Amino acid sequence: MNKTFGKLDARIIKDLIAIAGKENVLIDKPDLEGYACDEMAFSEKYLPQAVVKAANADIITGVLSLAARYKIPVTPRGAGTGVSGGCTPVYGGIVLSLEKMDRILEIDEKNFAAVVEPGVTLDKLNKELSRSGLYYPVYPGELSATLGGNIATNAGGMNAVKYGVTRQQVLGVEAVLPNGNIIKSGGKYVKSSSGYDLAQLLIGSEGTLAIVTRIILKLTTRPLFREVLFVPFNDLQDAIDAVPEILRLEMVPIGLEFIERDIIEIVERYTGKEMPYHDYAAFLMLIMEGKSENEILEYFGKVEEICKKHGAVAAMVPGSERAKRRLLKAREQFYPAIKACASFDVVDVVVPRSEVAKFIKKVKEISHKYEIKVIAYGHAGDGNVHLHSIRLNITDEDWNKKEPHLMKEIHEAGISFGGAVSGEHGIGFAKKAYLPLQFSPEEIELMKAIKKAFDPNGILNPGKIFDS
Amino acid sequence: MNKTFGKLDARIIKDLIAIAGKENVLIDKPDLEGYACDEMAFSEKYLPQAVVKAANADIITGVLSLAARYKIPVTPRGAGTGVSGGCTPVYGGIVLSLEKMDRILEIDEKNFAAVVEPGVTLDKLNKELSRSGLYYPVYPGELSATLGGNIATNAGGMNAVKYGVTRQQVLGVEAVLPNGNIIKSGGKYVKSSSGYDLAQLLIGSEGTLAIVTRIILKLTTRPLFREVLFVPFNDLQDAIDAVPEILRLEMVPIGLEFIERDIIEIVERYTGKEMPYHDYAAFLMLIMEGKSENEILEYFGKVEEICKKHGAVAAMVPGSERAKRRLLKAREQFYPAIKACASFDVVDVVVPRSEVAKFIKKVKEISHKYEIKVIAYGHAGDGNVHLHSIRLNITDEDWNKKEPHLMKEIHEAGISFGGAVSGEHGIGFAKKAYLPLQFSPEEIELMKAIKKAFDPNGILNPGKIFDS
Repeated sequence: MNKTFGKLDARIIKDLIAIAGKENVLIDKPDLEGYACDEMAFSEKYLPQAVVKAANADIITGVLSLAARYKIPVTPRGAGTGVSGGCTPVYGGIVLSLEKMDRILEIDEKNFAAVVEPGVTLDKLNKELSRSGLYYPVYPGELSATLGGNIATNAGGMNAVKYGVTRQQVLGVEAVLPNGNIIKSGGKYVKSSSGYDLAQLLIGSEGTLAIVTRIILKLTTRPLFREVLFVPFNDLQDAIDAVPEILRLEMVPIGLEFIERDIIEIVERYTGKEMPYHDYAAFLMLIMEGKSENEILEYFGKVEEICKKHGAVAAMVPGSERAKRRLLKAREQFYPAIKACASFDVVDVVVPRSEVAKFIKKVKEISHKYEIKVIAYGHAGDGNVHLHSIRLNITDEDWNKKEPHLMKEIHEAGISFGGAVSGEHGIGFAKKAYLPLQFSPEEIELMKAIKKAFDPNGILNPGKIFDS
Repeated sequence: MNKTFGKLDARIIKDLIAIAGKENVLIDKPDLEGYACDEMAFSEKYLPQAVVKAANADIITGVLSLAARYKIPVTPRGAGTGVSGGCTPVYGGIVLSLEKMDRILEIDEKNFAAVVEPGVTLDKLNKELSRSGLYYPVYPGELSATLGGNIATNAGGMNAVKYGVTRQQVLGVEAVLPNGNIIKSGGKYVKSSSGYDLAQLLIGSEGTLAIVTRIILKLTTRPLFREVLFVPFNDLQDAIDAVPEILRLEMVPIGLEFIERDIIEIVERYTGKEMPYHDYAAFLMLIMEGKSENEILEYFGKVEEICKKHGAVAAMVPGSERAKRRLLKAREQFYPAIKACASFDVVDVVVPRSEVAKFIKKVKEISHKYEIKVIAYGHAGDGNVHLHSIRLNITDEDWNKKEPHLMKEIHEAGISFGGAVSGEHGIGFAKKAYLPLQFSPEEIELMKAIKKAFDPNGILNPGKIFDS
């Protein structure tokens, strides 16, 4: 990292205060520490020189214009719940926090649209929507995440089989360019063929092209009933083989997860609660919504038949609301449970869903070779595999020597199965080294040329996705 | 139009023949005439100097590298069924036809994906898929259109309420850049957060950024039953008001169209067949799929109730397969029927769906002011309004004087209701004048900067979307 940026001196701080107000500019070290990293594993901390809490797009225009003039890096930040370091200010400079832009501006019940500021959390949006008959279906698990952050990483999660990811739910955005210009793209409509779709380009660009200041989200009707089916198998490959047949049924599940025994053990230890069928090797967990309980149960009957044909041992629908909630809750606690058990590194590779079991088999081989335990779970319905390499019973020296190779080989394997580096976490700076495994130099050059078209000075979230 | 391009001389023709083969390079005027425009109304013809029929991506690389060297414009072309002049070679040069790249490379039944070349028509894909249980849901009406063309315009159509548009169905592309480099983006997965989504940027870019040479499409399960409901109203506003309530029901229709009496009369004249309830002012037509006929009819019962609350006169489900097909067929014949009745200009504005009736009311006012009849129909479920200004009982002089103002005011009205210039036809060169009504100079500058990042010489489909 050898970029040359300007120095954020006292004069610029004074200008920032003039733009954003004294109470919205933090410069004291203890205040800055909360903005030095996200939830990425093993992240170094990178202190910004200043944090600016923006209250509106005009303030962001002011900050970016100033930053452009003096070549100061600006790193936008939502709730900081990312795990790839996307909002970590690796070159220092200004962290532009969007936490104060947290207004829900409109719930449009006629056009099934919500207009929100980027600092609105999923939790806040869901609560507001619970008063209407409408619903925002993307569920990346972490409800304290902001919609702005969801756009930055194109957040996915468990409901993607039916509803897709953030990209499919964003109808339009307003954003501030690095030169301070405010642009709009999209609106309250699903169809458009009117010039380049700038909104779609910004989604997943991890805050490197522009700062999104307003978001129009597509809403959907709220499902009436939701049920869960839990299916144990003796072998992961059997479970994965059942997936295409399940998805061929006349109804589409919201989510279809796979789980391996390893993670079940860890979750049981974390929650102190026993999981059903916990001695089996692998599990499918299917989340389904429908217009009646009967409709769902009838569908589950067909799923059970398919799964048993593929060697499933049983198929369980939790008998009570409480048991159902516990099962769903257990799935959500995979991440914190693993976190509580040891430190770890995270892989978020996506592969074609037919390749999930083969990919994981390959991962286990790599894991054995390096004698580092790797735990797998994820989204069987969409091929997004979460792996955790566990730092347990290994010396620091061994870990530092082996882990980078383990990671590289796992990513190479994912790509060789037709996959991508990241399904939903983003590249940030954590996965930057793996991007060239997926993309040719020409492809990365093209991305850099796009970056340059937006940000000729390279001030916006530098050091992320690729070195530009 | 005052761009300076190189001259396509005999030497370059010789090189083109060396690259693509003699039989694939057309230079005789009668051969070129079929490539001088698309189906746009009132289009001048622009003869290319050569047509190259490419058989694969390497040939396209060869042609583009050559064209880049000599600054020759290259206009990619699918089936030429567009209506905005997107594939019309307004600066002459080379038309690069993709009609020979028409192979379906793979139907992947496990990952619900099709891999096709850009010259594959919707018709060919649908026929191939009819042998599987899978289905490509985008239905823009014109089945002779190619998938490459669908990507260029982000084609929409009647099924967009449930399935979205082309953008939502493309998992990945391979494309040749203007410098000849071949790039890939995406794969057989729905989730990705791995660098900028170049595939999404190419969708809807009308062949101005790159030439798509391979497409991975998302497939879905084939619906078992499909039914149509036809609902007459005395007033269009009543029909539009019923829409949000219909879409709130627990099932989502595939398509939800609105029709005005004017068009019914024209279609009756064209087909020689009487439409049901043809004396009423406006109609909703709802297309629904489900897992049983009963399920759909039960749903239609609820729709009928909502529509009657909003003043619907009746609600008719065609009593036979034949009657159903006739009704669907009539909808598809709007375009040819109007074409047979008079020449016309086309508007393809999209507005938030709650604004459809208000927008059309405004359009009628503008229409009266200029004494040019404007016919409206379109997609009530997604706000995409098709308007035809009919050139009937008007002198050439009057038409030429009034029509541009009529068009401009209609587009201004659409934008003022929160809409976009084009929902699904694209800008091409037909709608270029209206783009600045929707986008600020800064937004268009940004699009031009992106264009430049892809195509620094400006050789790829010049004169489209904006003047670059």
